[in-house]
Amino acid sequence: MTENNIRKTATLLVCCPDRKGLVARISDFIFRHGGNILHADQHTDLEAGIFLTRIEWELDGFQIPREQICPRFQPIAGDFQMQYEIFFSDQISKVAIFVSRLPHCLQDLLLRRQAGDFRAEIALIISNHPEAAEISQSFGIRFRHFPISPENKSEQERSEIQELRSSGIELIVLARYMQVLSDPFVAEFPNRIINIHHSFLPAFVGAQPYHQAYRRGVKLIGATSHYVTSELDNGPIIEQEVIRISHRDSVEDLVRKGRDLEKLVLARAVRLHLMHRILTYHNKTVIFD
Amino acid sequence: MTENNIRKTATLLVCCPDRKGLVARISDFIFRHGGNILHADQHTDLEAGIFLTRIEWELDGFQIPREQICPRFQPIAGDFQMQYEIFFSDQISKVAIFVSRLPHCLQDLLLRRQAGDFRAEIALIISNHPEAAEISQSFGIRFRHFPISPENKSEQERSEIQELRSSGIELIVLARYMQVLSDPFVAEFPNRIINIHHSFLPAFVGAQPYHQAYRRGVKLIGATSHYVTSELDNGPIIEQEVIRISHRDSVEDLVRKGRDLEKLVLARAVRLHLMHRILTYHNKTVIFD
Amino acid sequence: MTENNIRKTATLLVCCPDRKGLVARISDFIFRHGGNILHADQHTDLEAGIFLTRIEWELDGFQIPREQICPRFQPIAGDFQMQYEIFFSDQISKVAIFVSRLPHCLQDLLLRRQAGDFRAEIALIISNHPEAAEISQSFGIRFRHFPISPENKSEQERSEIQELRSSGIELIVLARYMQVLSDPFVAEFPNRIINIHHSFLPAFVGAQPYHQAYRRGVKLIGATSHYVTSELDNGPIIEQEVIRISHRDSVEDLVRKGRDLEKLVLARAVRLHLMHRILTYHNKTVIFD
Amino acid sequence: MTENNIRKTATLLVCCPDRKGLVARISDFIFRHGGNILHADQHTDLEAGIFLTRIEWELDGFQIPREQICPRFQPIAGDFQMQYEIFFSDQISKVAIFVSRLPHCLQDLLLRRQAGDFRAEIALIISNHPEAAEISQSFGIRFRHFPISPENKSEQERSEIQELRSSGIELIVLARYMQVLSDPFVAEFPNRIINIHHSFLPAFVGAQPYHQAYRRGVKLIGATSHYVTSELDNGPIIEQEVIRISHRDSVEDLVRKGRDLEKLVLARAVRLHLMHRILTYHNKTVIFD
Repeated sequence: MTENNIRKTATLLVCCPDRKGLVARISDFIFRHGGNILHADQHTDLEAGIFLTRIEWELDGFQIPREQICPRFQPIAGDFQMQYEIFFSDQISKVAIFVSRLPHCLQDLLLRRQAGDFRAEIALIISNHPEAAEISQSFGIRFRHFPISPENKSEQERSEIQELRSSGIELIVLARYMQVLSDPFVAEFPNRIINIHHSFLPAFVGAQPYHQAYRRGVKLIGATSHYVTSELDNGPIIEQEVIRISHRDSVEDLVRKGRDLEKLVLARAVRLHLMHRILTYHNKTVIFD
Repeated sequence: MTENNIRKTATLLVCCPDRKGLVARISDFIFRHGGNILHADQHTDLEAGIFLTRIEWELDGFQIPREQICPRFQPIAGDFQMQYEIFFSDQISKVAIFVSRLPHCLQDLLLRRQAGDFRAEIALIISNHPEAAEISQSFGIRFRHFPISPENKSEQERSEIQELRSSGIELIVLARYMQVLSDPFVAEFPNRIINIHHSFLPAFVGAQPYHQAYRRGVKLIGATSHYVTSELDNGPIIEQEVIRISHRDSVEDLVRKGRDLEKLVLARAVRLHLMHRILTYHNKTVIFD
Repeated sequence: MTENNIRKTATLLVCCPDRKGLVARISDFIFRHGGNILHADQHTDLEAGIFLTRIEWELDGFQIPREQICPRFQPIAGDFQMQYEIFFSDQISKVAIFVSRLPHCLQDLLLRRQAGDFRAEIALIISNHPEAAEISQSFGIRFRHFPISPENKSEQERSEIQELRSSGIELIVLARYMQVLSDPFVAEFPNRIINIHHSFLPAFVGAQPYHQAYRRGVKLIGATSHYVTSELDNGPIIEQEVIRISHRDSVEDLVRKGRDLEKLVLARAVRLHLMHRILTYHNKTVIFD
Repeated sequence: MTENNIRKTATLLVCCPDRKGLVARISDFIFRHGGNILHADQHTDLEAGIFLTRIEWELDGFQIPREQICPRFQPIAGDFQMQYEIFFSDQISKVAIFVSRLPHCLQDLLLRRQAGDFRAEIALIISNHPEAAEISQSFGIRFRHFPISPENKSEQERSEIQELRSSGIELIVLARYMQVLSDPFVAEFPNRIINIHHSFLPAFVGAQPYHQAYRRGVKLIGATSHYVTSELDNGPIIEQEVIRISHRDSVEDLVRKGRDLEKLVLARAVRLHLMHRILTYHNKTVIFD
């Protein structure tokens, strides 16, 4: 499906206290105004008393103009104390990728974008090293170099935030970016920063997880993509994957095999986010795939 | 959750031509009569124009008595040309297991039933060999021995059908039953017979799939659970799984490793069926798990 | 292959400092005396300077009588400072299984023994609870009940050790045995106690790993089999496996899915140990499979 | 490890009838001349009576000059009727990649080469379409465009063979090359052409395997890398991998998910081949990894 003839849809994401009639009220709202529901997923956490749903319907034939949908939906949202968002399939998200020296996740995301794995405008590449400039150029993407030292970190982060804001960036992807973002930076983009950690979290938090895995003698290594929160490597997990290793594998082999995991696990998370398939609550994700 | 305090719910399975308003009409029906929806899954095959849904709601507080639910739902079903079924969570399905000489799938299902992996009454074990009598007895389950020869097959199958009908069997599980069921037998239980085939279908249809896999030199072997139809090993696939093998593995190793796959893949299919999570159309399954 | 016609072989396991000529000296020793090598695996940890090998050869035609093999091999072992062991394929190991209340791993091992997945004499089942007595009896295996309290633990463990010694037990399998063994107990059976931990170690060490996994919101859960050392859940890892979970899975679902992992991962470790395919060094395992 | 300081080793691959003394004679040959064995793997197919081994030893300290190793080993090879090859770790293989329109496998191999996943000189890219010219150029690799029609196929293949011969190509990788190579072409490069087929062979041989998989309703899709023989999609299998799909996945989703499998499975095969870890016999592979 090319971008010109993509099906025009609206997607509603809702998180609220569980109550009778939620599905009926929402689906009735869509039906009464001529919407045809394409996908509807819901999840109720019975223990926590929380209801989450993702509903996608065709805009073709829907009688409410898109700028009116939020105000018209507001009374229902108010009744049920909903947190909600509405997205339109022809709005293409702007993405920034942060990278340090290892380029494989960056290259992978750029090639996947090219192959049509997901739709996004990769508008900006930021690095604390200069090496990624060439890749950025070959894909025609703006590159900004922000070297980070303990002394200039706060200032550089403020510049980065300004850059991200002025570019209208909606999603930040840390594609093996080896700097820890400060709390103020993270607070600017809640649930909008996806990181790839090269271990099966919560095992091997922190630095050099492949070395840690080698020393412990595990038989599988993993990678984890998650939203970044103020607590290091402890945000809501989006996706994880593992691969088998053996005593024959050196640390270098773990690094090599791990690259495949990192690429896959980060790309899946980015795709799910861009398709508005992730909701979060209680430091966990609900994935409607 | 013990069987006494299991949550009382109704589950509606629907398959019909896709049309606007389906979700709204169904959820409104449930809400208007005081039902609280616990799970709602839907799938639309846009190409085929088919809509499928599974909705489960609490009976506690629902104002229609359960024997009235079908007649009261009938007008909606008629409007939308629905094929539908309604199940209640406290109705426990009666299951018959067919087995030949290899007991591992039978034992696995019996132990899973005991451990509470799924709820069912395993009411009958049928075999063309006498060996399973002892296992049946140790679990306190009625055992019937129907030896099969080319001469007596039709007659024995008629006796089996009678036995199954009189016992009120709702699901037949072929747990490494090595006889091909005749078309008349299969026609008696449409989408009610689950088989385990010890290959990754459609590879290695027919006899001795592990020998076939060994000769071909594949690097993964598989198992497939499916509903039985009149075409051998060609019914709707419910579940598949694979395991890695290497040149070090003999046919005996494949058989041994395969047993684990067979047990897992058959048990998952049985559990999904018993929880009314499988719909079929166009010789495929839709799994709402 | 039945136990009567099993191929008679010797298996040599060696761990020593790496030096030139190791493979040549060992294979020459076997060849000069008429042995036909069936399997030979080796691993060199170049960083640690350690050489490990497993060599299996046919006894049929081998000119050294089996009780003479060790003394005749001793000079080579001395030259190379080898730690080594020699096993014969027709010697069947005696195994004790420890279990608490959950029977699935115990049942699984007993059925696998019956199906011929591995060869062993399961000579003794020990539990701190009485429930496993019935299963033990139905498989014709001696059962001993050792209730454990903080007060009697040392004394009970001494009785257990005596029991294990007098029964000639060579391998102890903790099949969901929920007591921590004391250091003196563990010291009696170095690399002879296999435990199953119901998490992907080193994540979720200690109690209630499925609850920990649920709270953290991981997308895969795991199980780990390992040799028991004095440090809890930190012995050499033998095998690990994972399974995918989602937000739909409750803690009970994790427990249910985890049972399959626990059974598989423990059974593989037991089989590898009984086939003398595991060597350990530096708190890691080398698996020659 | 950079290419300059790569460890200098010799690797011997042997396939011959099984006989006593094979390991001893080979390892004695290496040891007597001062070689230190780093890796030794062997496999005996007892049923077929075939012995296969891969032995790698350090050239540093080995007393036979490398051009003399083959002649000096010849008598042993003759005694045991060995088919054998000897490779040196500092000889870098020349590789040609064939591609049609889909670039993902080509890009993946080029980036893996760059990241150091394997060592090779990718000397030539050949396509029946012009699109890959740009990628080739950006990686500085010679590109040749050979359009294929039924009329010119034989002639074009002869030109390709000439090109490959004159470039000293040792391995041909079909990276989603959608033309069937003729028997004469294949015969020129026995066990030197690796193909990626986008199904779990032997399921879905031939055209449009993802469409076939979609229609059959399988729950896992796969990819298979194999050596090319004169029988389509039937050569010795090197590697296979699968990924889970569901009823939610359209054919386009299968194609997208399959790309990841294709890249992984082809790259693993290429790496194994370049590291001389694959032997073949009876249309099967033995992988010493």
